[in-house]
Amino acid sequence: MTKKFVYLFSEGNGQMRELLGGKGANLAEMTNLGLPVPQGFTVSTEACTKYYEDGRKISSEIEEQIFEALAKIEKLYGKKFGDETDPLLVSVRSGSRASMPGMMDTILNLGLNDKAVEGLARKTGNPRFAYDSYRRFIQMFSDVVMEQSKKVYEEILDEIKAKKGCKSDTDLTADDLKEIVELFKSNYLKNQGVEFPQDPKVQLLEATKAVFRSWDNPRANTYRRMNDIPYDWGTAVNIQIMVFGNKGETSGTGVAFTRDPSTGEKGLFGEYLMNAQGEDVVAGIRTPNHIQMLKDQNADLYNQFVAIADKLENHYRDMQDMEFTIEEGKLFMLQTRNGKRTARAALKIAVDLVKEGMIDEKKAIMMIDPKQLDALLHPMFEPKALKSAKPLSKGLPASPGAACGQIVFTAERAVEIKEQDKKAKLVLVRLETSPEDIEGMTVCEGVLTARGGMTSHAAVVARGMGTCCVSGCKQITSVDEDNKVLVIAGKTLKEGDWMSLDGSTGNIYDQAIATEPASLTGDFKTVMDWADKYRALKVRTNADNAKDAAQAIKFGAEGIGLTRTEHMFFDAERIMAVREMIVSKTIEQRKVALAKIMPMQKSDFKGIYEAMGSRPVTIRFLDPPLHEFVPHTDEEIKELAKAMGIDDRELKLTIDSLHEFNPMMGHRGCRLSITYPEIAEMQTAAVIEAAIEVNREKGIDIIPEIMIPLVGDVKEFKFVKEIVVKTANAIIEREGVNLKYLVGTMIEVPRAALTADQIASEAEFFSFGTNDLTQMTMGFSRDDAGKFLSEYYEKKIFESDPFARIDECGVGQLVKIACEKGKAQRESIKLGICGEHGGDPATIDFCHRVGLNYVSCSPYRVPIARLAAAQANIRNPRG
Amino acid sequence: MTKKFVYLFSEGNGQMRELLGGKGANLAEMTNLGLPVPQGFTVSTEACTKYYEDGRKISSEIEEQIFEALAKIEKLYGKKFGDETDPLLVSVRSGSRASMPGMMDTILNLGLNDKAVEGLARKTGNPRFAYDSYRRFIQMFSDVVMEQSKKVYEEILDEIKAKKGCKSDTDLTADDLKEIVELFKSNYLKNQGVEFPQDPKVQLLEATKAVFRSWDNPRANTYRRMNDIPYDWGTAVNIQIMVFGNKGETSGTGVAFTRDPSTGEKGLFGEYLMNAQGEDVVAGIRTPNHIQMLKDQNADLYNQFVAIADKLENHYRDMQDMEFTIEEGKLFMLQTRNGKRTARAALKIAVDLVKEGMIDEKKAIMMIDPKQLDALLHPMFEPKALKSAKPLSKGLPASPGAACGQIVFTAERAVEIKEQDKKAKLVLVRLETSPEDIEGMTVCEGVLTARGGMTSHAAVVARGMGTCCVSGCKQITSVDEDNKVLVIAGKTLKEGDWMSLDGSTGNIYDQAIATEPASLTGDFKTVMDWADKYRALKVRTNADNAKDAAQAIKFGAEGIGLTRTEHMFFDAERIMAVREMIVSKTIEQRKVALAKIMPMQKSDFKGIYEAMGSRPVTIRFLDPPLHEFVPHTDEEIKELAKAMGIDDRELKLTIDSLHEFNPMMGHRGCRLSITYPEIAEMQTAAVIEAAIEVNREKGIDIIPEIMIPLVGDVKEFKFVKEIVVKTANAIIEREGVNLKYLVGTMIEVPRAALTADQIASEAEFFSFGTNDLTQMTMGFSRDDAGKFLSEYYEKKIFESDPFARIDECGVGQLVKIACEKGKAQRESIKLGICGEHGGDPATIDFCHRVGLNYVSCSPYRVPIARLAAAQANIRNPRG
Repeated sequence: MTKKFVYLFSEGNGQMRELLGGKGANLAEMTNLGLPVPQGFTVSTEACTKYYEDGRKISSEIEEQIFEALAKIEKLYGKKFGDETDPLLVSVRSGSRASMPGMMDTILNLGLNDKAVEGLARKTGNPRFAYDSYRRFIQMFSDVVMEQSKKVYEEILDEIKAKKGCKSDTDLTADDLKEIVELFKSNYLKNQGVEFPQDPKVQLLEATKAVFRSWDNPRANTYRRMNDIPYDWGTAVNIQIMVFGNKGETSGTGVAFTRDPSTGEKGLFGEYLMNAQGEDVVAGIRTPNHIQMLKDQNADLYNQFVAIADKLENHYRDMQDMEFTIEEGKLFMLQTRNGKRTARAALKIAVDLVKEGMIDEKKAIMMIDPKQLDALLHPMFEPKALKSAKPLSKGLPASPGAACGQIVFTAERAVEIKEQDKKAKLVLVRLETSPEDIEGMTVCEGVLTARGGMTSHAAVVARGMGTCCVSGCKQITSVDEDNKVLVIAGKTLKEGDWMSLDGSTGNIYDQAIATEPASLTGDFKTVMDWADKYRALKVRTNADNAKDAAQAIKFGAEGIGLTRTEHMFFDAERIMAVREMIVSKTIEQRKVALAKIMPMQKSDFKGIYEAMGSRPVTIRFLDPPLHEFVPHTDEEIKELAKAMGIDDRELKLTIDSLHEFNPMMGHRGCRLSITYPEIAEMQTAAVIEAAIEVNREKGIDIIPEIMIPLVGDVKEFKFVKEIVVKTANAIIEREGVNLKYLVGTMIEVPRAALTADQIASEAEFFSFGTNDLTQMTMGFSRDDAGKFLSEYYEKKIFESDPFARIDECGVGQLVKIACEKGKAQRESIKLGICGEHGGDPATIDFCHRVGLNYVSCSPYRVPIARLAAAQANIRNPRG
Repeated sequence: MTKKFVYLFSEGNGQMRELLGGKGANLAEMTNLGLPVPQGFTVSTEACTKYYEDGRKISSEIEEQIFEALAKIEKLYGKKFGDETDPLLVSVRSGSRASMPGMMDTILNLGLNDKAVEGLARKTGNPRFAYDSYRRFIQMFSDVVMEQSKKVYEEILDEIKAKKGCKSDTDLTADDLKEIVELFKSNYLKNQGVEFPQDPKVQLLEATKAVFRSWDNPRANTYRRMNDIPYDWGTAVNIQIMVFGNKGETSGTGVAFTRDPSTGEKGLFGEYLMNAQGEDVVAGIRTPNHIQMLKDQNADLYNQFVAIADKLENHYRDMQDMEFTIEEGKLFMLQTRNGKRTARAALKIAVDLVKEGMIDEKKAIMMIDPKQLDALLHPMFEPKALKSAKPLSKGLPASPGAACGQIVFTAERAVEIKEQDKKAKLVLVRLETSPEDIEGMTVCEGVLTARGGMTSHAAVVARGMGTCCVSGCKQITSVDEDNKVLVIAGKTLKEGDWMSLDGSTGNIYDQAIATEPASLTGDFKTVMDWADKYRALKVRTNADNAKDAAQAIKFGAEGIGLTRTEHMFFDAERIMAVREMIVSKTIEQRKVALAKIMPMQKSDFKGIYEAMGSRPVTIRFLDPPLHEFVPHTDEEIKELAKAMGIDDRELKLTIDSLHEFNPMMGHRGCRLSITYPEIAEMQTAAVIEAAIEVNREKGIDIIPEIMIPLVGDVKEFKFVKEIVVKTANAIIEREGVNLKYLVGTMIEVPRAALTADQIASEAEFFSFGTNDLTQMTMGFSRDDAGKFLSEYYEKKIFESDPFARIDECGVGQLVKIACEKGKAQRESIKLGICGEHGGDPATIDFCHRVGLNYVSCSPYRVPIARLAAAQANIRNPRG
């Protein structure tokens, strides 16, 4: 028996999304519900896969099944494909498992040719309608199937309209349209070298292939990557008998939602247009009517539609997005699906549906896309204030949110102003930022850079901080920090001038626009509370300072999973001491420099402990290669040499000796503490003394978690742990206190995962550093992968960015191995993740499944992680 | 019951090496054989481990057991430790499981103090002997236990000798020695701040601790790392009653072998010295006698010794290295062990023992250390010619063998001369070498560089080629390639002058010294034939040209496991075309450049195929990042721009854009073929056309194995494989031939190992690239690890270089996973290794155990690999 590739709508149902795509499954479901659906059939997603396997060909068995199904539709409606008296016309639409609005193409009125158009004219007594349908078909077929630009056809249309003095398409007569059809056809011949195909079966097969092909077009590929839709799902093709909204003033077409997709407010929301076909509503040539106006125009029809909408929402228990057509006063449903909605609407709808008793809390949680919440987590412009503002220029939307402040040109100046006036609101404008700007960035509302893309230093750091950032504004022609002026879009702005940035659109305004902070209130809070109720994973945050820690707590963080101590080193006052430490020739010199850094680190840790209260705090020891801290320009080297009282040529040699061929795999992580145990000693002392002092001063009980980075062998861990324990215990004894602390490690080197049993014999917790683990497991560095990753996406080698979503198959395997071996060795071992993946919903689902205790992510991702963790536990409940 | 840490010799046996060390086990075994062994006891290796665990302390239970054993020895000999009339004296010697000659220390005459020495004098009636023993003891105790330099004692000795007018130590009288003892003791007090310890028990415990301590001294650590001896084995301590070779002219001491350790010739070989203690024989103060002279001096004793030697060789079935002492005409055996021997002797002894029926072939194979063979695989100086030569200078022994040739200063010139005169013998002298010198290096007998160490480019490449190399000669003060002169050790040499290099010692001669080639004949051939009979692993070679391939076949290679196509790109004629290909802006430009390279690659492959006959040849596609090929100096860039007819500033930008942060993890390997499929097309065409042509011209059947590097995902492999198959099949069809070929991959990215089942569904063979796999699994790059690896050795974090010997625990785990998954998916999959580990015996043993089909190594390691593979199969026979 041959495989079934083609299903009549009456043969399917709503559960068959994988095979029939969302549209096909819903058309079948609506048919089963007895709704007025023009009948037809679906060519399955498996046929699409086979099409690609067969080298982009439709096999003869699929072809046969298509025409068998077509014959049944002909019989059902008593019409014949290509018939000269009463031709069967069909639409051909794509429909994949996931909704991909507008990504792929649609062809209407298929089946028309020079003879059938005449038959249609006669049968309907409406030649204008027949020729209008034909010219639309030629146009769509050329565009979608033959990939010829629509522009020529639109030009011909405009020409004829001008000649005839018509304002609108509807003013054109049947004869005008006949003339247009002839012009379209001769244009087709000219462009394609063959006549417009007259055989409807050829038209149908070509259109089907075009839909399959469109699964692989660039915009579909991009959309899929952004939305984690696998390429191998394929698309189905829906072939449906045509109903016509363009049969005159009693016909029409429209789209409607059962609730407002912007606000979530309950009630029909939508638009329609009489005497029009599908694309006219969207095209914006005529202004469509609000759906409520249909009530006045045709109350029966309106009521029928309302009843159907209610029935569908009740049936699917979610807000529906419906397409309908009215043919000569008769209503037809062409599509229904769960409607896309804004984050705010998603929350309201979910909460309302629970209140209405339509769904339970778990279902409500599953309805919301965690990624959407991002839009609600940053300050926003007050809608009224924004309305009257006009952007001066635009850059890349590098980090979302809105910012309003006075311009400042250096990080130092920002810190200086902020120290004088704590209420000052600042926007930092730079050519580009560097690690030394970090402190300045934390005190500003937003950051604007002239150079750099979405992954520039400014963008990455700002996103981590949740600070608004617009990067790579090409209209900035000069940033003169000495004279404190910039020129943007031809306008000169100076320090102190007001500026507003929209990090979600990239818009730049040369004026103050009031903002309002994000808050987890109302529906948002309700949903978050539900999420907390259902999740098994704890959610921690990555925070390097007290400010970030405080923000994360507001968003519901339950601890810190990663404090990067090196970020504290770039502060202007400190960097000199850090550099002194690095270029030290002897242990004694190094200890002197470390002694200068120690009180600063201690005070940072105290700030973080105080912000976190008794929540757990994981502090990672120094990780990056030392050369990241040293100066590289001759001038800076001279300055440092002078400050250290050494020869600048000698200093240059020392700095040169720090050069590495592959810094990512160089002298960093625990390797630093092994070669310079003094560093680990100093950091331990800072962690432990801070905990003791905060306990004495504020009565907060801290159990610090010290994390050793980049361990690959248990002996490395043991070596550093011994330093930590010796130093910590000496302080605890000296201070006569009873302080507990944990010592654990990052699992970020493949060998650590493979030997996790050995490491767990010494380590009290593991935290997966999936950034490095991904780099080493896949063998490419994040900084260099840009050179080929775009080709990898294009060539379908990768479907998603392995640095954003964990590679479950490879990297995930190592995580799994490490969890299993770690637990087998030490049942009580605490397992977490602190790479950037920790805030990605798909990765969180994976973390839940492999049995981690917590995920840790940047403060602004905490609510997303809480929701994603709840969804993970609803999908796969932990025992 | 407490653990037993101390064993009398009469309680042990030869099988207890792990517990008693080699020396202790053999002393026990000799005791069991009824040989004249001074009795004593062994403190076990477990006591050593416990000593370190207890923080370098001897626990009270071990102390008790030592004194219990001592009491038994006292009873046995009827003497008392520290007795004033007849004191028991002992020697204290280290003895680990593996022989570590001279790495740790020995103390003789322990038990003497101010009173016992008088007792000894009285008892023996020989005060001279008693005080000589005492002064030796003080000297050794100070040196070994208190770590005070021997120099002061030697100075005192020399002073007294001068004062008394003595030439030799033996001229000193009892009174002289008494005076010396007093001087030694007061020197001890001055240096240590305490009197020389008079309590023999204190002496014994201190000496025992010193032996344990010496396990961790730098020279022991270095020796262990070089010989793969684990740190955790520990050393035992042997405490044995003293017998004295210094009791006058009827006493003596000596060492002897049952066969000549240099040649392997059967017959007693050794030296002895009358009236002397242990170290005198080695110290070279007096010239010892050949062992044969003992026959004349004391035939009975000689015969007794010969009988013992025969008995021991027959018992151990291996050449023995024995220490003996004659005390007043009585023979005592102090030690026996399997003797160290040269490679040549090792082969002869193994073959002779088989001929003599003492051992079978398997035992013979197991007796030879594969690493030793290296010494026999390179050209050597004719011994006579070398005798009359005097080195001019010395550098680092970077690649073994001997070379003699005329000086040349550039690789190009070397090639030029060689083209004119194929018989020319050349030595290339450079400041340092770079990849562009490779072709020139292959035509030279040897390479000398002024800069660079043992891991410099010249050293690494030369070792790979088996070419003699001396690197980093600091006495070279100038290398002027323009004027073709160099200044070395103050002497000026010019092009054409003769020079000889010894790559095993680093010696440099300014004269011609005749060399003789290595050959696998005689005993060497016999052993290799046996090895082939018993091994299961195939042995292939890594060869990038026909010359290396031919050499490898002479050494028994059964195929090529790795041809690095990029090495062919550096040739002066080719590099321009390669660079043109790299900086191409369009596919068309790139194809033009590739078309220039194609015939060159094809001709290389033909040469290799012809050399290999019908043996399998694996060719790896282009692997390194492209920027390795481009020029970086402004001058070279201008030259290239001119040749390509483009703007040099634009070219510079293109070159800059190739820069990578972590080139090891950058745009290389299969990533190149994915972004530039034209490269894979060209390389496929070259591989396939060469095979077809060689078949037509020479009738050789070639089945090329095409290897795709750096695959991490099956989709990468599939993408490149499709290009290969398409290109290859088109050529095969066009040429109307029936050529088979395989397409497989390197497993060198951790993810590839983890997903080997998926990859095996497409790949026909795996070859483990353990260099890269080690880098990525451990997370450090080979180029940068030097910054911390030495500290890792010192701190016992690593015991061996993971780039020389495979890290079985981590990297090996991935190899194992990949083998299992690969075979589960494709039973017939061919598995090999082609990293530098492929020539390391320990790694070969691992490869055998995990079930690889072959190892591949540089030509000069092929015989080593053949032997190691046989040993692996004898240890763990394959079913």
